[in-house]
Amino acid sequence: MQIVIALFDRFTALDAVGPHQVLTHLPGSEVIFASERPRGVCDDTGTLTLVADAAFADVPVPDILLIPGGPGQAAQMGDGPLRDWLLAADKTTTWTTSVCTGSLILAAAGLLTGREATTYWLAKDELARLGAKPQDTRYVFDGKYVTSAGVSAGIDMSLALAAKIATPEVAQRIQLGIEYDPRPPFNAGSPATARPEVVAAFRTTSRFP
Amino acid sequence: MQIVIALFDRFTALDAVGPHQVLTHLPGSEVIFASERPRGVCDDTGTLTLVADAAFADVPVPDILLIPGGPGQAAQMGDGPLRDWLLAADKTTTWTTSVCTGSLILAAAGLLTGREATTYWLAKDELARLGAKPQDTRYVFDGKYVTSAGVSAGIDMSLALAAKIATPEVAQRIQLGIEYDPRPPFNAGSPATARPEVVAAFRTTSRFP
Repeated sequence: MQIVIALFDRFTALDAVGPHQVLTHLPGSEVIFASERPRGVCDDTGTLTLVADAAFADVPVPDILLIPGGPGQAAQMGDGPLRDWLLAADKTTTWTTSVCTGSLILAAAGLLTGREATTYWLAKDELARLGAKPQDTRYVFDGKYVTSAGVSAGIDMSLALAAKIATPEVAQRIQLGIEYDPRPPFNAGSPATARPEVVAAFRTTSRFP
Repeated sequence: MQIVIALFDRFTALDAVGPHQVLTHLPGSEVIFASERPRGVCDDTGTLTLVADAAFADVPVPDILLIPGGPGQAAQMGDGPLRDWLLAADKTTTWTTSVCTGSLILAAAGLLTGREATTYWLAKDELARLGAKPQDTRYVFDGKYVTSAGVSAGIDMSLALAAKIATPEVAQRIQLGIEYDPRPPFNAGSPATARPEVVAAFRTTSRFP
């Protein structure tokens, strides 16, 4: 079972590494980071470089593909190597997935038209404009298309996906393996729970899309 | 404020990338991945390479240092470049921190003797043997030493640390930025909550330390 995580300049690191940490422990999985060519790919903070070991051309028929988000997503919404690969690979995937604003890339390629999906909380209007039906949940399954909310939500989505690909028990074993028993020190992880002044401050100072 | 995350062969990727994703958004922070020399460092699954841009010698006096865990931790518990750097850098850090079995490296270097600390759930006995006092909490502050439970716990620890370094409001803004409103599909993230058969299966099949 080949799982390909696409990388592009200015991706958000946790969008890619959270799901990798879960999916790489699925029995029989082979997780590969790919980009238009093998290279180190720098994240949106400019301080983290993750290596894409494969070119898109090396992995034309993944069983599962995952598109992370990050401000670099904007440059991937038109014609180019990532979209060409995505559209060709999607024809034979078992699951086509995204984290955060990665769903905007799926939607811009026409893959989410009329489908229920989700994205980063600040990007839901754009997701609707691109023809999807945004949902207010942590992750959304619509047929083989699985999309998650922002950044850290890729971990939750990947555990849910692991349960479908393997069994709930396998997913639970992976969850125990990464000791995912979250205890955030604040209840500020969503615009619905964060204090209004935190939401307002974030909107004005955001380095996110 | 210089924050150095140490990398070594067979580290666990989320141990390093979770805290990076939080701490890199602290105002005035500069996060640097370092190893004994600048190089790509392969994680414990063999499928993820993160680039250490700096050598330990380039970053002798970080304000904050973070040691991730992973099975590669065992090779870092004796004399060597990482321990030499750690002991020298610790003399002037504001915070010395670890995720998962990274605390075993701190303890083996003598930094946690008599201190309250935590580690990966399977490694608590070893942490006690190394002279620390293991706690059953998600993260532990003891003076300037901050240690977290396994893998994903580094995110919680880093948000708590961000609140102390800056303000709770800044930490909450970062939490909202990474949409950290966790919704694990199962309640299996700790040996206290996972079903006994899941815990037993994990112990026998574990690729973790």
